[in-house]
Amino acid sequence: MKFTVNRLAFISYLNDVQRAISSKVAIEVLKGIKLTLSADALKLTGSDVDITIETIISIGDDNAALQVEEEGSVILPANFFINIVKKLPEATLTLEVNERFQATITSGVSEFKINGLNPEDFPQLPEIDTDDQFILPADTLKQVISQTVVAVSNQEMRPILTGVHLVIRDQQLLAVATDSHRLSQRKISLANIGAHLAYDVIIPGRSLGELGKMLADDEEEVVIQISQNQVLFTFGHTSYYSRLLEGMYPDTEQLIPQTSNTDILFDAVEMLRSIERASLLSHAGHNNVVKLSLKVAEQKATLSGNSPEIGMVEEDLAFNSLTGNDLEISFNPDYMKDALRSFGKAEIKMSFTQPLRPFTLVPSEDGNDFVQLITPVRTF
Amino acid sequence: MKFTVNRLAFISYLNDVQRAISSKVAIEVLKGIKLTLSADALKLTGSDVDITIETIISIGDDNAALQVEEEGSVILPANFFINIVKKLPEATLTLEVNERFQATITSGVSEFKINGLNPEDFPQLPEIDTDDQFILPADTLKQVISQTVVAVSNQEMRPILTGVHLVIRDQQLLAVATDSHRLSQRKISLANIGAHLAYDVIIPGRSLGELGKMLADDEEEVVIQISQNQVLFTFGHTSYYSRLLEGMYPDTEQLIPQTSNTDILFDAVEMLRSIERASLLSHAGHNNVVKLSLKVAEQKATLSGNSPEIGMVEEDLAFNSLTGNDLEISFNPDYMKDALRSFGKAEIKMSFTQPLRPFTLVPSEDGNDFVQLITPVRTF
Repeated sequence: MKFTVNRLAFISYLNDVQRAISSKVAIEVLKGIKLTLSADALKLTGSDVDITIETIISIGDDNAALQVEEEGSVILPANFFINIVKKLPEATLTLEVNERFQATITSGVSEFKINGLNPEDFPQLPEIDTDDQFILPADTLKQVISQTVVAVSNQEMRPILTGVHLVIRDQQLLAVATDSHRLSQRKISLANIGAHLAYDVIIPGRSLGELGKMLADDEEEVVIQISQNQVLFTFGHTSYYSRLLEGMYPDTEQLIPQTSNTDILFDAVEMLRSIERASLLSHAGHNNVVKLSLKVAEQKATLSGNSPEIGMVEEDLAFNSLTGNDLEISFNPDYMKDALRSFGKAEIKMSFTQPLRPFTLVPSEDGNDFVQLITPVRTF
Repeated sequence: MKFTVNRLAFISYLNDVQRAISSKVAIEVLKGIKLTLSADALKLTGSDVDITIETIISIGDDNAALQVEEEGSVILPANFFINIVKKLPEATLTLEVNERFQATITSGVSEFKINGLNPEDFPQLPEIDTDDQFILPADTLKQVISQTVVAVSNQEMRPILTGVHLVIRDQQLLAVATDSHRLSQRKISLANIGAHLAYDVIIPGRSLGELGKMLADDEEEVVIQISQNQVLFTFGHTSYYSRLLEGMYPDTEQLIPQTSNTDILFDAVEMLRSIERASLLSHAGHNNVVKLSLKVAEQKATLSGNSPEIGMVEEDLAFNSLTGNDLEISFNPDYMKDALRSFGKAEIKMSFTQPLRPFTLVPSEDGNDFVQLITPVRTF
């Protein structure tokens, strides 16, 4: 195996594949990156069993300027190899692998020899046994991911809640995540997919988080294929496989209140700043809780926090509209921060039923497609 | 106590004082920042016993726009207070402290109340019982610090080596640091100081490191006063006190070889890149060592590293001149990286006597004022 490639282009491909590789994995070959060189392309594969990423540098890529001298394949220690490539002195590098899987990396005056592993020991790619697929623009998928993974549980006690529940039915995609303290739900219409397509799967939040970081903020097409226990996202030169979580996701539909007794409309960015201030105090104390008091007759909204040993904070909130019944409600400000950040710049409607019932945040324009729900904290 | 101040200007003063404050300190008052308000200035003091920083916001500072309403003083929890000031919504803030040392911080719609401590419990400032002083430009002092602290020991086994040895005599300043594996020595002539001034002190490396971060890259004057067990650096609005280390610093003068048998001249930046590459391999293996081979007849300099379980690296080095005897020498590449970085962009002369004797790096122009010395590693 021998090839020459442009170093900077190669680094960008390597960085993509490295996302799948964890140095904590116990299996030696999975700490490695697999290189497979054919006459017309160099394939890079990395995997941590849950996630597998494959990306292809074709000889047609002018930036990469790949020159194939001899086909072959090898597994090289990922972090070490990538660090070497990053530090090499010249614009190109040549990599040659001998029959004992020792790789010689040459770039200008610099020559590294590093020990590789037999590529046959690398796990096989997951199988996607379906031709069905649907397509989302990269920026839309990236948005759905960032809006839902925020509410995914990071506790392994209920593994099912570490995933995002994806339901595709009637040409609509529904994505829901909840850690049982808060919930985030996003809907998208998929007018251009086959009406027969129906899926109900749970994708690990970590897989989606890493995928989100790789997706561009543009409308490049992402092709999504779902099989029994795997999902495959294909975009650009990259195939991104993730294992699915097994089990039944809880029924979250009935958790979202359909009516409200108090509503307040406000600017998400302004509110985020107020919550951040109040959380300085709640973080310093024992209880990470802030209190919101809404007085409709006086048209007054007050955010406050109190930790006797540390101090207290009180702030009058700016809002655009406040209607319904007076209310006092306490909640974890970190959940509120995550929720507000997921809206970006927008006017938000927060709707309450009772002080101890979950309340919702939706964009005030078009509140059907995106809902954040937060469960309050009992403080008495 | 009550004052109003511009928030951003206040933050920059607070950040300076915060450098002295460690959240790890066991003494409660030292986790705080002391504020002392007089009719014409607000004094901020922070201390971790080793370092004490005092900075003064005077009513004459237009940026700070300090308005004094009622004199007084208080200790406030440093990190918490500074975080609050950073997040407040408006351009100014008002701070009012009652007789129970509870502070009310108001900025626009936001109001915090935080519990402070009695300012009388704060330690007294160190005493500097001398009128003698000398002056260095801030950029020169900053350079001397960065060039020497690199070689300071971070091991508490020989506490004396955690400091920088400063000797002032015959209108010259000599700064030396060594961790017994490497040494850095810098000389500066102080033509403008009194010929009678003579000091021999050891300043903790950590104190100098923090001081270096506060000094500007300009020629602002830093006034230095040294007493029995304290040194005081005064610049701008700030007084920076550091404890001195007690004990005798080892005699380092005789460690620096005065002759050489092999000399190589090279570009510091180019060499740093080569060493960084070679250290990728030495860091991955068990022995953090690289080997330099100098062949004078062939005019060849080769840097190599070998870790049988990982691989090997070899690189032909570019140099400007190579004279004397052939040599093979092994050393810790991290010491070499630190040394090379301390020169910045410069041509360096590296001089060797024998393979197991310390070797030196000096700027090829004017090699008298700055020497880095590295002890080689025995590899056989």
